Amino acid sequence: MTGGPVLIRDACPTDHALGHIGLYTQLTDAPPMPLEQYTAFLKAHSETGGCVLVAEVDGQLMGCATLLVEQKLIHGGRPVGHIEDVVVDQAARGQGVGKALIEALVQRGKKAKCYKVILDCSEHNTGFYDRCGLERKGVCMGVYL
Amino acid sequence: MTGGPVLIRDACPTDHALGHIGLYTQLTDAPPMPLEQYTAFLKAHSETGGCVLVAEVDGQLMGCATLLVEQKLIHGGRPVGHIEDVVVDQAARGQGVGKALIEALVQRGKKAKCYKVILDCSEHNTGFYDRCGLERKGVCMGVYL
Repeated sequence: MTGGPVLIRDACPTDHALGHIGLYTQLTDAPPMPLEQYTAFLKAHSETGGCVLVAEVDGQLMGCATLLVEQKLIHGGRPVGHIEDVVVDQAARGQGVGKALIEALVQRGKKAKCYKVILDCSEHNTGFYDRCGLERKGVCMGVYL
Repeated sequence: MTGGPVLIRDACPTDHALGHIGLYTQLTDAPPMPLEQYTAFLKAHSETGGCVLVAEVDGQLMGCATLLVEQKLIHGGRPVGHIEDVVVDQAARGQGVGKALIEALVQRGKKAKCYKVILDCSEHNTGFYDRCGLERKGVCMGVYL
């Protein structure tokens, strides 16, 4: 990683050209997405109260993470924040970028009046999230369709 | 439970008077919610492609469960289904109501083109979800705000 400060900010349409979608290939299957679809996603997502944050260093995207805000019928209608799709570029790992992204999303969850923020991760990533202030709450179960 | 068949259907505004919110008190903190807020939730939720299903037996609500459909930037924009807030009335447990709800939500996830359906649960509920066809995928971490 270059030596500049880490800027955490909301993703915007110009991040498409900066390779935002390409970052996700370090996490999972992430084929290129047309700019129009990317822009529509960011707009629709922010309208639900959530956000997509990116970590920028010297004009390059070094990480990203998403907060999904879920409205509820329980807890008097207070929402839950779901942290999703956290990636830090392999060239920038171990330098606090991931922790800065998670802490920023937890703050966004507070601002959105969420009563909790949760995420699912693999067993070997629990130590990282523990250092970000999250605790083990349960088991994630799933089925691929 | 009375002996009639189990009808799984989408929740609708009249379920407010049938005690839908009251069912959640068997799961967590769920204070009464005004009808207007309940109706607005159902409308907004269905507009995102998700659903709230209820299980009705002889005109009474015996269970409910929610599918949240999350759009993604990964996987070519295919969504993920999140199963949330599963409750079966204590008078109706062990009679297949929960399994019917989960299976219906997985089918709704398929219909919404989700590439997977996931949920978070406590360790002691993993056996139930395993019998519904879901597998252990990871750890849920969280922080209360």
